[in-house]
Amino acid sequence: MGTARIGVYGLGTMGSALALNMAENDIDVAVANREAAWISPFIAEAGALAQRLHPQDDLATLIGALPQPRVLLCMIPSSAPMDEVIAAALPLLAPGDTIIDGGNADFRATRRRSAELAARGIHLVGMGVSGGEAGARHGPSMMVGGPAHSWAQLQPILTAIAARYQGDPCVAHLGPDGAGHFVKTVHNGIEYADMQVIAEIYGLARHGAAQAPQAIGQMFARWNAGPLRSYLVEITAEILGYDDPATGHPVVDVILDAAGQKGTGRWTVIEAVRLGQSASMIDAAVAARSWSSEKDMRVRAEAALGGARHALELEEDTLAEAFLAARILCYAQGFRLLAAASDEYDWSLDYARIAQIWRAGCIIRSALLDDISDAFGAGVPGAELFLAPAMAARLTDAAPALRRVVSAAIAGGHAVPALAAALGWFDTMRQGWGTANITQAQRDFFGHHGFARLGAPGVHHGPWWAEDSADRPG
Amino acid sequence: MGTARIGVYGLGTMGSALALNMAENDIDVAVANREAAWISPFIAEAGALAQRLHPQDDLATLIGALPQPRVLLCMIPSSAPMDEVIAAALPLLAPGDTIIDGGNADFRATRRRSAELAARGIHLVGMGVSGGEAGARHGPSMMVGGPAHSWAQLQPILTAIAARYQGDPCVAHLGPDGAGHFVKTVHNGIEYADMQVIAEIYGLARHGAAQAPQAIGQMFARWNAGPLRSYLVEITAEILGYDDPATGHPVVDVILDAAGQKGTGRWTVIEAVRLGQSASMIDAAVAARSWSSEKDMRVRAEAALGGARHALELEEDTLAEAFLAARILCYAQGFRLLAAASDEYDWSLDYARIAQIWRAGCIIRSALLDDISDAFGAGVPGAELFLAPAMAARLTDAAPALRRVVSAAIAGGHAVPALAAALGWFDTMRQGWGTANITQAQRDFFGHHGFARLGAPGVHHGPWWAEDSADRPG
Repeated sequence: MGTARIGVYGLGTMGSALALNMAENDIDVAVANREAAWISPFIAEAGALAQRLHPQDDLATLIGALPQPRVLLCMIPSSAPMDEVIAAALPLLAPGDTIIDGGNADFRATRRRSAELAARGIHLVGMGVSGGEAGARHGPSMMVGGPAHSWAQLQPILTAIAARYQGDPCVAHLGPDGAGHFVKTVHNGIEYADMQVIAEIYGLARHGAAQAPQAIGQMFARWNAGPLRSYLVEITAEILGYDDPATGHPVVDVILDAAGQKGTGRWTVIEAVRLGQSASMIDAAVAARSWSSEKDMRVRAEAALGGARHALELEEDTLAEAFLAARILCYAQGFRLLAAASDEYDWSLDYARIAQIWRAGCIIRSALLDDISDAFGAGVPGAELFLAPAMAARLTDAAPALRRVVSAAIAGGHAVPALAAALGWFDTMRQGWGTANITQAQRDFFGHHGFARLGAPGVHHGPWWAEDSADRPG
Repeated sequence: MGTARIGVYGLGTMGSALALNMAENDIDVAVANREAAWISPFIAEAGALAQRLHPQDDLATLIGALPQPRVLLCMIPSSAPMDEVIAAALPLLAPGDTIIDGGNADFRATRRRSAELAARGIHLVGMGVSGGEAGARHGPSMMVGGPAHSWAQLQPILTAIAARYQGDPCVAHLGPDGAGHFVKTVHNGIEYADMQVIAEIYGLARHGAAQAPQAIGQMFARWNAGPLRSYLVEITAEILGYDDPATGHPVVDVILDAAGQKGTGRWTVIEAVRLGQSASMIDAAVAARSWSSEKDMRVRAEAALGGARHALELEEDTLAEAFLAARILCYAQGFRLLAAASDEYDWSLDYARIAQIWRAGCIIRSALLDDISDAFGAGVPGAELFLAPAMAARLTDAAPALRRVVSAAIAGGHAVPALAAALGWFDTMRQGWGTANITQAQRDFFGHHGFARLGAPGVHHGPWWAEDSADRPG
């Protein structure tokens, strides 16, 4: 039995899966868990892989079992528990040791903890892990933020366990402190938006075209063979093929239409507005989940307002093109958030590399990410994916279909908040001359805020202001 | 010359206007400003009202000039400056004194400051003031949060200076600590959304129907005589009638279409998601302002993607009905945020009273607020304005027009993010059976999150999970 190279503290779904992944890749792992009772069953179920797993009684013993400089991966809730574990570990660690927060942490907390630990000579790595349990077990996508010293130590381990896209390990050191967790947060926002687009398209096919779930699943399966190929499309196709064992109905018909959320989508919305941005499709997706959770209200509202949704005549190819346009816009919005944060925090994010490590292992993996990686690799700025020649061309080709779908859906009473939000952004950004001049005029009228004039520098006020500014019309 | 009853610290636009308003209402006011040089000109321009104004050299002298229990109104930036003034004032105040923060404060900061001051026996009142400079000078709407003791002392002064709607002073004690500032924040969010709706409708008339600004202004003027009557519609009508003195063009045509924002709209978005809500029209309005500020990018994007907006055939009455539906939905969303916060913080907000004090003095004052006040007065819960019988009836009548407008606008390439967001919420909420079952199925498939089943309690997993949960298809 070898010496553990890394410690994993926290043997929940993700922690245990990662530990097994490491063991399977011939990496000796010391493991522990706050609830010590979980450890023995975990080792027992590991079978042959138990050879590489070194169970410890508690956090202190775990830290003691690691060779210095130590690497301690914490797979625990990233809020107060993480602060508690850091506090407990600190007296036992030595300068040069690394703690990895592998949970879905708020990147601001990661930045705070990084600074606090750095003052003690301890390194904090904030690592976003995507791919769910299967990803963690067989190959996740990992977004790493932290110091170069820790990355040098971690890279061999993470490279070994990562998902691979045509041989390329889906893991990268993206920047300092909270950069990895921020990128993961945006990944999750994109995930919410893509899922919402799928749900809306499903709704149009189901309630607009009266297609049965199985037929819709076959449509998604056909789409998975083309430019829309993605993990989410693939699993949707699969899901729609299942019947409920108990009733024989399509299983989706027995699932309550009330979506839960863990909170990372909300964080994306909050961070976006703090950066002066908006990823409107992510806003819409987060909103749709919140609204869906109000099932009772919706049932009552249908009785009061009527729930009619009219028939739609939309061809499969039109829906597919609309979906493609929406997906491009979704990624474009997500990368704008990354660019805004990269500027704000001086992270110099490598957008091409981010797109590359998302091509396998993670929930949002899709064929489009190859093209996105190419666009950024050719020098397109992070905020301008929608203007990259190949992307712009595909958008202009597919936008009419998106327009047709959204227009028809809205006319027919179908809820398409994310698809409409995609067009709201697209149609705003491709207008050199918008309508915010009205807003500026109003703001100056009631608040004397002033506006910019075409062709004249400085702040101006409108002619509705008399010379005595205290005495104004209206 | 009488003794000052209240002190005003901060003689910027709003502070000086409020002080003059008080003086005009025969209230003796002691005034001071950090920049002492502003004081003399302010007194000089006050004319006869100077009799009621008692200038002081600085904060300390101002506090000394007030009879106990003191009332000190601070009209200064509500971030760090407010904390600085509180720190400077504390040693000079006595238990029972009241400090009023009359700025646009983050209600969370107000809650914090309230607790800190209360520990010293000092009362903090957080007061939202709406109506801009003209409102502050001649009658604002004021949303007061703080202890009952302070309200008892303040009420005569605030009642005297408030706007009046058919004699009813537009001021109310809405709850403790941050309640007033939260209500003001939501007021500002509604303001953003209503302004965005107006801008979008303007855009449809201008770029879709090729109407000139003056003609559009006349349309708004006609609307101001009906159910759409509101301050924002009134000033839009007025604004569109002005020509630019320098060029002779309609003045809106020489104003840059890049909207600024002070930040309160962003706060509304953030607080909404923190409360598990979404006011999607406010999201859209905040987003539209952010996107508008990227003028250069939009010009470049137009060159790359094409900026075509097609002709629309929309009748004035259809636009008016669409606007009315959107406005009802906007208020409904705003009151849902108030209800969520009221529940979260145990404020027991009086929604009818809030609607009433918004009927005059404030930026969002509109004819609809009378009907809204009636609805809440009849017992409709804060989160259910859209289901109030009168509102639901008007919505179902006007929604087809909104649908027609948004559908045509989107088909024609016009950006209508707020109007579309209104329908996105409406069409989601009036559906007893939505599409989040797909989302729940996906979340269970990749994350084992589980879902609720129709007719069976507890958390369930889909048939895609084999008996050995570590070994799953896909």
